[in-house]
Amino acid sequence: MIRVVVDAMGGDYAPREIVRGAVEGARGHNIEVVLVGRREAVEKELSDYDLDGARINTCWAEETVGMEEDPVRAVRRKPNSSIAVGIKLVKSGQASAFVSGGSTGAVATAALLSLGKKKGVSRPALGIVFGSPSGPVLFLDVGANSDCKPRHLLQFAEMGNVYMKRIFNISEPRIGLLSNGEEETKGNKLARAAYQLLAKSELNFLGNVEGHDLPKGKTDVVVTDGFTGNVVVKLSEGLGEVFAELSKQAVDNNPIFREAEKQILNYTALGGAFLLGVKGNVIITHGKSDAGAMKRAIRLAERMVEQQVAEAIGT
Amino acid sequence: MIRVVVDAMGGDYAPREIVRGAVEGARGHNIEVVLVGRREAVEKELSDYDLDGARINTCWAEETVGMEEDPVRAVRRKPNSSIAVGIKLVKSGQASAFVSGGSTGAVATAALLSLGKKKGVSRPALGIVFGSPSGPVLFLDVGANSDCKPRHLLQFAEMGNVYMKRIFNISEPRIGLLSNGEEETKGNKLARAAYQLLAKSELNFLGNVEGHDLPKGKTDVVVTDGFTGNVVVKLSEGLGEVFAELSKQAVDNNPIFREAEKQILNYTALGGAFLLGVKGNVIITHGKSDAGAMKRAIRLAERMVEQQVAEAIGT
Repeated sequence: MIRVVVDAMGGDYAPREIVRGAVEGARGHNIEVVLVGRREAVEKELSDYDLDGARINTCWAEETVGMEEDPVRAVRRKPNSSIAVGIKLVKSGQASAFVSGGSTGAVATAALLSLGKKKGVSRPALGIVFGSPSGPVLFLDVGANSDCKPRHLLQFAEMGNVYMKRIFNISEPRIGLLSNGEEETKGNKLARAAYQLLAKSELNFLGNVEGHDLPKGKTDVVVTDGFTGNVVVKLSEGLGEVFAELSKQAVDNNPIFREAEKQILNYTALGGAFLLGVKGNVIITHGKSDAGAMKRAIRLAERMVEQQVAEAIGT
Repeated sequence: MIRVVVDAMGGDYAPREIVRGAVEGARGHNIEVVLVGRREAVEKELSDYDLDGARINTCWAEETVGMEEDPVRAVRRKPNSSIAVGIKLVKSGQASAFVSGGSTGAVATAALLSLGKKKGVSRPALGIVFGSPSGPVLFLDVGANSDCKPRHLLQFAEMGNVYMKRIFNISEPRIGLLSNGEEETKGNKLARAAYQLLAKSELNFLGNVEGHDLPKGKTDVVVTDGFTGNVVVKLSEGLGEVFAELSKQAVDNNPIFREAEKQILNYTALGGAFLLGVKGNVIITHGKSDAGAMKRAIRLAERMVEQQVAEAIGT
């Protein structure tokens, strides 16, 4: 049986929506969800549910990490935070995955310091999967590494290759490199050098992908540095909000627009972001995640464990 | 009287839409438009119009630069291209501005080689203006410089400051730096160093702007390197296309969506991209520009000349 730890205190709608998502995520699946967080808060929420058919366990952690706190300092100074305690359960082998909607920086820092990197991975990366007309696209790094070397981008592609093979059963994932032009001579220094490494690798490298190709899904994996990746994801969110606002003004609740919102930006629809390259399965959901998003993140955790994604990355 | 040169051969809808836009742009304004391009093609198009009230002149250039050609090579090998001849008219003082929907690289290269840089400007930058709920936002560099130094970003901010003062009458333009977090400690090495230079400058620097802030218009100017800027603009275009397609499926021709398309991506609505930091006014419109977009670009050229933007940049 798979045991997934869920941070009950992480995210804008914690603990209410997190606990609800955990209960729904556990129900009917052969998994156990361990809710980690402040006893009083978690017990109060849990009392609202009939837990029949849902394996829910708890683990108390009385500290919490705020979104505005410095990640490294918070992880060092708060050993009893829900993030630190949750990651420790994965580290000790008591659980197989950790899901949190809390501070991305704090979760990534705790995972790096406690779980450690897989051999062969210099820089774990944060990935998201978004929908496109030609299928799911894995995009990474979206923020773990602001400055990258060409070989880091090659490693991101290798990790993405494993992920798409295992999670989406794509036999030869098509790899793209985000750049400012199609030709191999285009790009900044980083992208041009990464292009050469990718072209020489055994990956199914299709070449450069431009900004306008991203929503179209030209490749199964797109790699970039964490600075550009973060700008891309946040810009998509921002444009999606403008779009959602405008469509609300036009036609209330038109199903096409609900679909569009998902397509354009709502990667929570596909389970949140995940950290690749650490010794464990770590999923970081959007801060605005509701119960449905948490449930999907738990399903993703389950699948990552079953498919042994963390084991297959690195050596 | 202001004389604006228009590249009749540049863009997907050249020469038909370009010539039409030129005639409409010249009509009723105290400007002369010089159409530069292949004699046969331009004369054929011009024969469709009654030029009463529109000062149109012509200048023949029998070569053209293709979108797929290497910009530097094309500019060197084709001295009689519409781009090279058009830029030369500005260089010699016979005209005050050049407008082209042709290859961005070729126009920028010709402008740099022929007109040269303004003193005090290390790297001319390509800017666009997009609409936001709080007014127009100048975003640069969108592709002229893939690799930048911190001082280049400072210069982009200085040029943007002049532009927004002169073109939009903003007395103290608010300057933002695109980054992956609000705090000054966020960013890649380039952004963190540029932050320090901007904070020490006399500009009205508001700090970092994130991807999701871009469509909201948190500042009047946003600076970034040309790699990230290019990805941002092309991603916005790509998302805008998805959005336009979806809204077409939902409600044909709803005015809110036409407005939204403009807001989200259609910077051609505001006259196209422009090169700041060279000795002359150079406007590069989108390749998909129609007559309306060309007309707006001509208006922008007129205003840039009147407001002496090129003169005011650098020293």
